[in-house]
Amino acid sequence: MPKKNKIREGSIRTTSFDVAALAGVSQSAVSRAFKPGSSIAAETREKVLDAARKLNYVPNSIASSLTTHRSNIVAIILGDLNNPFYTHVLETFGRELQARNRHILVFTLNEDMGTDDAIMRLLPYQVDGVILTSAQLSTRMVGMCHDRGIPVVLFNRYIPNTGAFGVRCDNPEGGREIAEAFLAAGARAFAMITGDPKGTTSKDRATGFMDRLVDAGIPRSDIKAYEGSSSYEGGAEAVKAMMADGAKVPDAIFGINDIMAMGAMDALRIEYGLKVPDDVMVAGFDDIPEGARPPYQLTTVRQPINRMVRATIDLLNLDDPHAEIDLAHDCPIKGHMVWRNTIPGPKPE
Amino acid sequence: MPKKNKIREGSIRTTSFDVAALAGVSQSAVSRAFKPGSSIAAETREKVLDAARKLNYVPNSIASSLTTHRSNIVAIILGDLNNPFYTHVLETFGRELQARNRHILVFTLNEDMGTDDAIMRLLPYQVDGVILTSAQLSTRMVGMCHDRGIPVVLFNRYIPNTGAFGVRCDNPEGGREIAEAFLAAGARAFAMITGDPKGTTSKDRATGFMDRLVDAGIPRSDIKAYEGSSSYEGGAEAVKAMMADGAKVPDAIFGINDIMAMGAMDALRIEYGLKVPDDVMVAGFDDIPEGARPPYQLTTVRQPINRMVRATIDLLNLDDPHAEIDLAHDCPIKGHMVWRNTIPGPKPE
Repeated sequence: MPKKNKIREGSIRTTSFDVAALAGVSQSAVSRAFKPGSSIAAETREKVLDAARKLNYVPNSIASSLTTHRSNIVAIILGDLNNPFYTHVLETFGRELQARNRHILVFTLNEDMGTDDAIMRLLPYQVDGVILTSAQLSTRMVGMCHDRGIPVVLFNRYIPNTGAFGVRCDNPEGGREIAEAFLAAGARAFAMITGDPKGTTSKDRATGFMDRLVDAGIPRSDIKAYEGSSSYEGGAEAVKAMMADGAKVPDAIFGINDIMAMGAMDALRIEYGLKVPDDVMVAGFDDIPEGARPPYQLTTVRQPINRMVRATIDLLNLDDPHAEIDLAHDCPIKGHMVWRNTIPGPKPE
Repeated sequence: MPKKNKIREGSIRTTSFDVAALAGVSQSAVSRAFKPGSSIAAETREKVLDAARKLNYVPNSIASSLTTHRSNIVAIILGDLNNPFYTHVLETFGRELQARNRHILVFTLNEDMGTDDAIMRLLPYQVDGVILTSAQLSTRMVGMCHDRGIPVVLFNRYIPNTGAFGVRCDNPEGGREIAEAFLAAGARAFAMITGDPKGTTSKDRATGFMDRLVDAGIPRSDIKAYEGSSSYEGGAEAVKAMMADGAKVPDAIFGINDIMAMGAMDALRIEYGLKVPDDVMVAGFDDIPEGARPPYQLTTVRQPINRMVRATIDLLNLDDPHAEIDLAHDCPIKGHMVWRNTIPGPKPE
């Protein structure tokens, strides 16, 4: 007679043995049917799931994770929900991880909780991996994750010298492409609206942009920079700071991400009555769906979000916890220029 | 001599006994320091956390949840990330739950995963509660949660006859207030852009709106309805359907939520050259920050999101798992009219 499963919570619970009996398979087949990535014939799996449905059976992941050290949970640390890009990122991770039978423990950062805090809080859950979309992370925390065999992958950023590697778009190249497009359209005086000053993403895009302009003979003094805090409101504030400078309106403004470019466009048009692109050209970066809406029709660089999300999940090696993790992996994915209406140039797509 | 903790994962791990020794407190004080809602002097807790930091100690929640049947995890099922309202909801739940030392397991619904699926997937994790922001839920699933002692709270909706109760804004009253505002501004012909036809939220707002208009003697034939699928794009499509109807442009359009009202406003202005509110008045519902931006300045009804989130967490009774759950709780929270520029009326706030 099969032993009864000992995990109970005060009510009589169907066990994997009951399911095995009804499905006419072994108990180990029932375990495999519920274990992501394990080898089992599709037909057997269907029989098990059918029986489980009939019996209202639910496996106890908490108990099994004690022996397997796998929780099938991936933690995502979300730094900035003011930028809709990260809502789309979360949705894409949701779809892709759920399709692999993995689930997401979300940590949202705010003034009360920083990244290190979030990591301390997720460690007790034996997560199978950590995806980080925020900038700050101490080497000590990376060490604590690695000591526990938990891979950490940075999304859309990297942190030099922490041993935390990442998946990101080729940001300097994207910045260069925007500069190229502005130059081709005749711009000679420029402004940039920058994001998180501690993040690599904003810095890399700005560097690529500046380098290309300087190469083309634009004096550095004709490239101004304003902080926009990666938000719509920050983009609008940056335009106000620029106009308060009293200097000539630049020919072209590069919003280091789309949401800041959108805030800038609205301020230019509504506060100062300027036309985009006739009076001033604007470009963004990310290609969030919001920037494609009729009032913006923003020319931008598309981050290949689906590819980036899948590359991140691949690096976590979820199906092979004993795999060597490639700490040296650092291969930016190329973005893609999307022409719409904010820079004169090729016809919009 | 204290017993050593047996939970290891292949590396020598600091135990609660090591922390207790360094902090000069009992092992049970260490447990209490890490257990949300337990009684411990602030000073003792500080000593424990200090020692834990020095030793890189992390409690094993997985192991302790087997004995306590509490995981300190709350599941949130997110139905619609196309509506920024739910991004703000997630952020607010993140802040409030993390402040109570609880963490969020997120399930995003899509064509491959419905609500019942999500519930089946979260049950193995012994979550302490489920928050549901999507509309569909079978009575069988509610039953499975209740059998396991897991409270389910619906956020921003209710599902009659499922035994799942919820927290929501007084939607019919909000709809009536919008109708009142339109009437006071002289509108006599109306359109509504409705959201999820299966959700109670859209229905209740529409009902309140209609009832108030009919009370004022407006014939039902002067109140048209168009589906807007709760998205920006859907709001714009609804306006196109309305204009294709060939009928006269209505005096006033009620977008059942802000994001649809925003899509409608852009279509009215950009596609048809109409002015808001001069040619047609518009109102929304929710008061998402996006609707307050300069191009929209949308008049709307504010959902008291902080209050609603706290009320939801209260209903989960996280600190008292043995508490009776008030299944009959059904007390809508009143919204608040926010006057901006899309209906002539009181001065904007």
